[in-house]
Amino acid sequence: MNLAISDRLKPMLARIEEFVTNELIPLEPQFFSKPFEELVPLLNEKRNQVKALGLWGPQIPTELGGVGLTLVEHGYVSEALGRSPLGHYVFGCQAPDAGNIEILHMFGTKEQQQEWLEPLAQGKIRSCFAMTEVDTAGSNPTLLEARAVKDGDHYVLNGRKWYTTAADGAAFAIAMMVTNSEAHPAMRASMFIVPLSTPGFGIVRNIPIMGHAGSDYNSHSEVVFENCRIPKENLLGREGAGFKIAQERLGPGRIHHCMRWLGISARAFEMLCQRANKRKIHTDGGTLADSEITQLYVAELAAELHGARLMTLSAAWAIENLGMSKARDEVAMIKFVVANTMNRIIDRALQIHGGLGMADDTILAYFFRHERAARIYDGADEVHKASLGKRLLRDYKRER
Amino acid sequence: MNLAISDRLKPMLARIEEFVTNELIPLEPQFFSKPFEELVPLLNEKRNQVKALGLWGPQIPTELGGVGLTLVEHGYVSEALGRSPLGHYVFGCQAPDAGNIEILHMFGTKEQQQEWLEPLAQGKIRSCFAMTEVDTAGSNPTLLEARAVKDGDHYVLNGRKWYTTAADGAAFAIAMMVTNSEAHPAMRASMFIVPLSTPGFGIVRNIPIMGHAGSDYNSHSEVVFENCRIPKENLLGREGAGFKIAQERLGPGRIHHCMRWLGISARAFEMLCQRANKRKIHTDGGTLADSEITQLYVAELAAELHGARLMTLSAAWAIENLGMSKARDEVAMIKFVVANTMNRIIDRALQIHGGLGMADDTILAYFFRHERAARIYDGADEVHKASLGKRLLRDYKRER
Amino acid sequence: MNLAISDRLKPMLARIEEFVTNELIPLEPQFFSKPFEELVPLLNEKRNQVKALGLWGPQIPTELGGVGLTLVEHGYVSEALGRSPLGHYVFGCQAPDAGNIEILHMFGTKEQQQEWLEPLAQGKIRSCFAMTEVDTAGSNPTLLEARAVKDGDHYVLNGRKWYTTAADGAAFAIAMMVTNSEAHPAMRASMFIVPLSTPGFGIVRNIPIMGHAGSDYNSHSEVVFENCRIPKENLLGREGAGFKIAQERLGPGRIHHCMRWLGISARAFEMLCQRANKRKIHTDGGTLADSEITQLYVAELAAELHGARLMTLSAAWAIENLGMSKARDEVAMIKFVVANTMNRIIDRALQIHGGLGMADDTILAYFFRHERAARIYDGADEVHKASLGKRLLRDYKRER
Amino acid sequence: MNLAISDRLKPMLARIEEFVTNELIPLEPQFFSKPFEELVPLLNEKRNQVKALGLWGPQIPTELGGVGLTLVEHGYVSEALGRSPLGHYVFGCQAPDAGNIEILHMFGTKEQQQEWLEPLAQGKIRSCFAMTEVDTAGSNPTLLEARAVKDGDHYVLNGRKWYTTAADGAAFAIAMMVTNSEAHPAMRASMFIVPLSTPGFGIVRNIPIMGHAGSDYNSHSEVVFENCRIPKENLLGREGAGFKIAQERLGPGRIHHCMRWLGISARAFEMLCQRANKRKIHTDGGTLADSEITQLYVAELAAELHGARLMTLSAAWAIENLGMSKARDEVAMIKFVVANTMNRIIDRALQIHGGLGMADDTILAYFFRHERAARIYDGADEVHKASLGKRLLRDYKRER
Repeated sequence: MNLAISDRLKPMLARIEEFVTNELIPLEPQFFSKPFEELVPLLNEKRNQVKALGLWGPQIPTELGGVGLTLVEHGYVSEALGRSPLGHYVFGCQAPDAGNIEILHMFGTKEQQQEWLEPLAQGKIRSCFAMTEVDTAGSNPTLLEARAVKDGDHYVLNGRKWYTTAADGAAFAIAMMVTNSEAHPAMRASMFIVPLSTPGFGIVRNIPIMGHAGSDYNSHSEVVFENCRIPKENLLGREGAGFKIAQERLGPGRIHHCMRWLGISARAFEMLCQRANKRKIHTDGGTLADSEITQLYVAELAAELHGARLMTLSAAWAIENLGMSKARDEVAMIKFVVANTMNRIIDRALQIHGGLGMADDTILAYFFRHERAARIYDGADEVHKASLGKRLLRDYKRER
Repeated sequence: MNLAISDRLKPMLARIEEFVTNELIPLEPQFFSKPFEELVPLLNEKRNQVKALGLWGPQIPTELGGVGLTLVEHGYVSEALGRSPLGHYVFGCQAPDAGNIEILHMFGTKEQQQEWLEPLAQGKIRSCFAMTEVDTAGSNPTLLEARAVKDGDHYVLNGRKWYTTAADGAAFAIAMMVTNSEAHPAMRASMFIVPLSTPGFGIVRNIPIMGHAGSDYNSHSEVVFENCRIPKENLLGREGAGFKIAQERLGPGRIHHCMRWLGISARAFEMLCQRANKRKIHTDGGTLADSEITQLYVAELAAELHGARLMTLSAAWAIENLGMSKARDEVAMIKFVVANTMNRIIDRALQIHGGLGMADDTILAYFFRHERAARIYDGADEVHKASLGKRLLRDYKRER
Repeated sequence: MNLAISDRLKPMLARIEEFVTNELIPLEPQFFSKPFEELVPLLNEKRNQVKALGLWGPQIPTELGGVGLTLVEHGYVSEALGRSPLGHYVFGCQAPDAGNIEILHMFGTKEQQQEWLEPLAQGKIRSCFAMTEVDTAGSNPTLLEARAVKDGDHYVLNGRKWYTTAADGAAFAIAMMVTNSEAHPAMRASMFIVPLSTPGFGIVRNIPIMGHAGSDYNSHSEVVFENCRIPKENLLGREGAGFKIAQERLGPGRIHHCMRWLGISARAFEMLCQRANKRKIHTDGGTLADSEITQLYVAELAAELHGARLMTLSAAWAIENLGMSKARDEVAMIKFVVANTMNRIIDRALQIHGGLGMADDTILAYFFRHERAARIYDGADEVHKASLGKRLLRDYKRER
Repeated sequence: MNLAISDRLKPMLARIEEFVTNELIPLEPQFFSKPFEELVPLLNEKRNQVKALGLWGPQIPTELGGVGLTLVEHGYVSEALGRSPLGHYVFGCQAPDAGNIEILHMFGTKEQQQEWLEPLAQGKIRSCFAMTEVDTAGSNPTLLEARAVKDGDHYVLNGRKWYTTAADGAAFAIAMMVTNSEAHPAMRASMFIVPLSTPGFGIVRNIPIMGHAGSDYNSHSEVVFENCRIPKENLLGREGAGFKIAQERLGPGRIHHCMRWLGISARAFEMLCQRANKRKIHTDGGTLADSEITQLYVAELAAELHGARLMTLSAAWAIENLGMSKARDEVAMIKFVVANTMNRIIDRALQIHGGLGMADDTILAYFFRHERAARIYDGADEVHKASLGKRLLRDYKRER
């Protein structure tokens, strides 16, 4: 279980860190103040620079034009990219596209791959993933209400989804719909590739979140399917395989989030330390860094972050070397551990910044309000804890 | 130490709660989506209704046209008003005006009171309080840099302040400026009444906070004094008395905040409970309220809130019956206890709401991002804890 | 809701505090190092002093020879006594006798009162309370297995109980036994007065707890009833009324514990502060009290303790003025809040003492290991939280 | 950074786990109920079995007769041994001998090694380490008061130490004494090998800790040096090198503790899970394992334990591959992280056991009271946090 930075990764990682620091962080004030679509041309230039450096798609298989890193390696890269909210987008490993690339790669037909996977992996189009529904626990797929009914050579989709990230401007959605409502709960739903130009598909609104509706890639939509008719060839995998594919997608999807959160945590931690060194609290020049309470915070957060990083790398190693099902407990752990660690670091960093932390003069206020969702999406803390705890307790029941 | 709701308060409180529920909470969607100044005419109507009901200025002395409640009574009222971000404003007890009314009442000359206090208490004008400066610990007044220099019959003010709440649209500021830089640290500064129309005063910007700059009453400005010349009659209290007055203002100011936070906490708590009862997590109709983890949260938060409320009422009683200096430790305690309780309740309520909590479809996301500042302004948690701890430890040193 | 120290209480409380400090705390080293029964003669002398001072039985009704304090008053007294593990015993308000006095007073027949209540209230005999059974959740009375079967003019008792506090040396037990196993769960059990000399009753062992089995009053026994035959006149209250009486007993019993825990907390807190002032950490004479982390701890613990005290007094007021059923939620809250606050204060005090805290040279190590049970007995934290949370959530269900 | 169980370790570890389960855990009731010296003959038999299996001294270099594991490997072994309080003693890797073996190996002269190291490594004699003094912060060596004065070919030692673990029955102490009081604080003290038979050395008492003074290996003494005269050849390393050697000893010493704590944590965690599966809370047979709150606890603790284990293994790898000074921050982190994780797991396990957890019928009550010290010895949490935080903050000062 080698968790170190591999030799081939070392120089790559240095270049990525440099790129984030010099090319992306300086764009952040624009990211806060402008609609995302206005930034797109500029970000496309950055993407081209990344491609020229051979760094595009760190986690994308080489045959699809990516770097083809292992999951442990990608852990380091993703932390480096996560330091800026623009990192993953510019390097082609942003959610939800990264997850969609993965399932199209695993479950897509050759035709589906040619039509959707290739341009997606190359960053020519964007995609979204429509699963969560309003007012039911998003994490419980047996409560899904949206339906797809077969009608000759087509499926007809009806239903409403929300928190469909990046639907605005996407070329297609992968949508989870109930097809076999009488089947075993885990066999009820199927996944479909839905071009967003299909009649009957509509974006109801970009949901205003924490004060902003956002736009383009930087948005989360409420979407509707009204007699949305798609060819039966757009079924992804087999009928009833929706949950199985979702599991395959959500496991790595969760670890991808965790890796990115480590980057956000690292950024907030370093801002905390820098600000503490600058903020005078005494007339004699003493700063917040001289305060023992600050030192206490820093030590605790550094330890938390170090632990969260090791757990994430270990889970990455397990997914790749033991398989998703054996890595399941570790993935559940990091989902809530890393999210909470990140939220605590952001909160403390904001506190050490004082009034400045609340202002949009730094990235902290952005992190504070937008990364709070980490403890909710892809399974709320409580859901992961209860189900992990139940599994672990069951093991001891068997034992003796 | 009677902390119960007094007999005269009971019917008043019922009317206030009804007013908040029926007249103010329905305006909240507008409050989130429109600039504040567009709401002002509507809010003025509501203020008139309040005045007609005899409920204007619950904490304002009767001779100034208010209800003249005791501080314990005002605790209950303020909690009721705090359930909506519009409550205090519409009832005439909003910060920073309430604090300014108090110091003008205590320290103002008859002329100052006629010119500034009376219209302020009647809600005809608004005011602001300019003390905090950038980049130094706001809580340490010995680090202030803004200066007022006497020049004949005038003072000339120079300096920069920020987080001057509600400066946008205010008639005057009470500004804290160093006048006697060689004096004992606690005697260096003085307070001045500065009409905002005075040449040399300027609003640099409404600071963008958590994604929004706000406007009018609902804003926090960075302001500048550049050779801003005011008559020496605008000195409030004696020269060098700035800190003393600030202490008089900050003590009650802090408890006013705590009382309002209790209202926010109560609102978030009730939203949590209502949502938990609605949100289905099982196909059989089971809701989040059936989850033992939710029950655990609810019990812990209810106990925290109950404790925070008792502590606030006890501190109010102490301020009024024992005096501010004897109430000092209690006020320090509630400053950090109530702020943290509120933040925890909001956080949990948001969590129980799931994705909906992040969306602007409820008030929680607003509370989440804007009430985070409670642990910073008027003395960060760490500052209060360290100084309270130091005082308490000193007592035991003397003892034996 | 007047929570202040009443005028009549003030001088009494001062005398009690003095007595604890001068007469009881000096006995603690003996309490740690000797079997309890060796201390009994000395403690009886102290009891006589207390009686001579007119302070015996602070909570016992005057007609039974006690002081007859209100519950709020007793809160203050009990905190003062709780500072030493000998306080309640010497003043005649120790568990489980205090609770037994209460139910004998409320539910006993005149004969039962003459025979058992009077000598108990006078401290001439001791009693115990046998309810909890091994291996089932003590807090769930529907799981009780011990049985009493009517046989002519007698009941025949069979079963096993543990954590029967102070059985060793007691004159009688009040025992909870199932009499009506087919009835509604809350009507199945009855309470009996069982003289410990009854054949068939036996003490299996004083349970070794945290390294010591203890003895006499200072013990917790495993007891057995084997065809233990008692006259039917020893039934306390009606058949099937066991749970109802237990509720009546447990409510005040819980608050009595909370009041005592406040005293332990206050003692540990003051030891923390004194030790911090003495323990040098720098060659220049600086002590742990100069450490900002210590100050942080002190401030947080002081606030917790203050809140816990107010909550306990408020619950006491509610029990006495609104009745046990209306005070139920408050009592549930303080059960877990005060227990946890106490445990945290003891833990921090021990930490500040360093190695000395682990040693038996102070009382802290005793508190640390024996007061841990507070979060378990009379309903574990989790049980109270889940049931309180459920009740509170139900209220909001009804509402809308 | 390979943290996995090595191939050579796998079978060895299985045998060790089996030995602990079958040979040592069954002895625990005797360990609780008898003085340690009565167990010594039995434990010596067990030691012989271990030697026969080739498992003696897992961390001891092969040239000294041990297994010579790497530090990462020893991490796994030490966790396995830590499950029982007898594990390390029986396998020859118990503190303080393990640390003394290490420094005698690194700094001892050939003569010192022959006389003291060899029999110690073989388990023929025991040793102790006398550094901590009463009433000063043990963690600050500049406050030491015990002195050694050179007198011809001897040193004369005077002073008082406490928490000298296992002095009772030891053959020699390694004692830290000030020799050069005017030197730089870090150069003031030296280490000496002191045969306990030396006149002038005395054990004042085995300190009663958490209710028991213990004896033999299982004790912590207060010791005194009164004109204790030892040959100058008993100086360990150079004069003034005491702190440097202590650093070399304390780093690995700390990680040895952490590894052992992981074993205690694992044991308590598994007891928690087993008990939860057994303890009925419903008449229908439902157990505590069905409670969502238990599941929440289990998930959180499992994640904590997993993180603590990875951090410990990572620190072990760093010590061995990068050197103690580069591993310093990681060692500081695990010192407080693992100690707190262990304490939390023990506390929760005790809680899930209910009354049984407080009783000496399981090992939990022993763990609860004796492992609390982990957050104090070898540097209290607060000391490690403040100094780690200070170091980390300093890095960011340099940066910009």
